[in-house]
Amino acid sequence: MKRYRREDEVSYCLGITLTFELLKYAKEYARKVYVHSSINKNESFEKLEKMCRELHVPMEYSDKPFNILSQKENCYVIGEFSKFNRPVDKNKSHVVLHNPSNAGNMGTIMRSAAGFGITDLAIITPAVDEFDPKTIRASMGAVFHLNIEKFSSFSEYKEKCGERELYPFMLKAKIKLHDISPKAPYSLIFGNEATGLPDEFLSEGTSVIIPHSGRIDSLNLPIAASIALYEATKQDF
Amino acid sequence: MKRYRREDEVSYCLGITLTFELLKYAKEYARKVYVHSSINKNESFEKLEKMCRELHVPMEYSDKPFNILSQKENCYVIGEFSKFNRPVDKNKSHVVLHNPSNAGNMGTIMRSAAGFGITDLAIITPAVDEFDPKTIRASMGAVFHLNIEKFSSFSEYKEKCGERELYPFMLKAKIKLHDISPKAPYSLIFGNEATGLPDEFLSEGTSVIIPHSGRIDSLNLPIAASIALYEATKQDF
Repeated sequence: MKRYRREDEVSYCLGITLTFELLKYAKEYARKVYVHSSINKNESFEKLEKMCRELHVPMEYSDKPFNILSQKENCYVIGEFSKFNRPVDKNKSHVVLHNPSNAGNMGTIMRSAAGFGITDLAIITPAVDEFDPKTIRASMGAVFHLNIEKFSSFSEYKEKCGERELYPFMLKAKIKLHDISPKAPYSLIFGNEATGLPDEFLSEGTSVIIPHSGRIDSLNLPIAASIALYEATKQDF
Repeated sequence: MKRYRREDEVSYCLGITLTFELLKYAKEYARKVYVHSSINKNESFEKLEKMCRELHVPMEYSDKPFNILSQKENCYVIGEFSKFNRPVDKNKSHVVLHNPSNAGNMGTIMRSAAGFGITDLAIITPAVDEFDPKTIRASMGAVFHLNIEKFSSFSEYKEKCGERELYPFMLKAKIKLHDISPKAPYSLIFGNEATGLPDEFLSEGTSVIIPHSGRIDSLNLPIAASIALYEATKQDF
């Protein structure tokens, strides 16, 4: 076992909570569960053992993966899984991330998207690794609920996903978030953390701004995406 | 110069962008600006030099503070400032953080609060350090726009701030965020990242939930706080 690299076929979720999410919602991709020798064999652990047995996922007692993969002290379980490819559903609403560059942000957006019932995520590359253990951790396991598909350009995305309402979020946009009423299937589109979306997105669908005071330059990316998700879906909750 | 410690009288903002925010919005607290020897003396740098001269803030060329305070490679300016105490305004709306434990989260909430025009932050201790350089960085300088006051209990906060609409955000609440219409001055109250608000907050004012699907346990704290800030203030923007 080595440090995680993007080109690996497998990735890891750190901690028992994430490992439960893996076994519940993406069990077909679970390959192995590593257990640290100093784990407390409590009720949760027994539940984990039972799930692994039922799903035929091998458990391996070894401290080495923890030294390699985990910086945290209180991590006693690691789930290993095959990276999966679940294409987005063209009949559903999507979050589209254009060139996202931070793993924690991507994971946080996955968590909010799953929370607000948008379970399809399109990523326009180049982009940070959607299976980086940091992404997985920030998603709090939401990654296992999502369809995630990568596209090499926004045109490629549009070609596959066809006619739908497009809402690029841009500081230059004129229409305010609380003045739109998206009808599914729609796509909420967000740019890179530092640079936002390129100007050509001003002519894609209806570009939208989340208005804020001049005291800040912009909202943090996962904050903006989550506010948009909340506003777009709040009638469903 | 040593590593930053919470008990220090001063703290630091890393990078030229944050240092500009310091000099613009909290200049009375600026003590010194450190400059790295390999800085590129471009237009921004000249602007910084001019501001320091006008404000009588000494500039010191020294690489040592960078080795001690900065993990990032591309940081060439550090602002040193006295920690300040700007009490919250009892006639204004507030964000109240009850026992927050993560510096990055606190900074992100400061950024959203400033963005949505709520410039008063009350912190109920124990809490993470509001002047930790990690908080300052995550705030993107918003910390310099805010009144920030610490209280040792929620009762102490109520005593000082008197009659106002209280909105504790809790998973056990029954009223949905989009069904309330806060009238200023109000307080949006959020609990600790891991434990949320204690149950006794169910009887403080109107407890509120941001409804979400069962796919996640909860929203990330700065996400929840920012969505609440957006919804409470959107008519102002």
